[in-house]
Amino acid sequence: MTVTYTVSGMSCGHCESAVTKEVSALPGVTDTRADAQTGLLTVASEQPLDDEAVRTAVDEAGYELVGRTV
Amino acid sequence: MTVTYTVSGMSCGHCESAVTKEVSALPGVTDTRADAQTGLLTVASEQPLDDEAVRTAVDEAGYELVGRTV
Repeated sequence: MTVTYTVSGMSCGHCESAVTKEVSALPGVTDTRADAQTGLLTVASEQPLDDEAVRTAVDEAGYELVGRTV
Repeated sequence: MTVTYTVSGMSCGHCESAVTKEVSALPGVTDTRADAQTGLLTVASEQPLDDEAVRTAVDEAGYELVGRTV
């Protein structure tokens, strides 16, 4: 399954890399795409992810998880 | 001596780090400060630096040396 989150604070490719690295390390995550221009973070995983785990990973990268697109 | 350059494209702390890392590696450089907000890059060195060497280092980091402040 794939979920798209909104993240604030990403301004460049380095920011995308930092977020991608942290979120990709979460158990069960199979693909991660972060886009600084749109502020969107798309995460594919085998099982449904805990939003709070994603929030923590984004926070550790130095950014803020704002929400989840519906 | 200390020279201040203007650099375009730096948008965040990661960008500052990338520029600082490349410029700091130039021979004779003793201190480097990059500020994404102002676009200023201040370089201290033992001997006068070749502007083209600084330009190359900034370019390798992925940014553009625009000029040198006077």
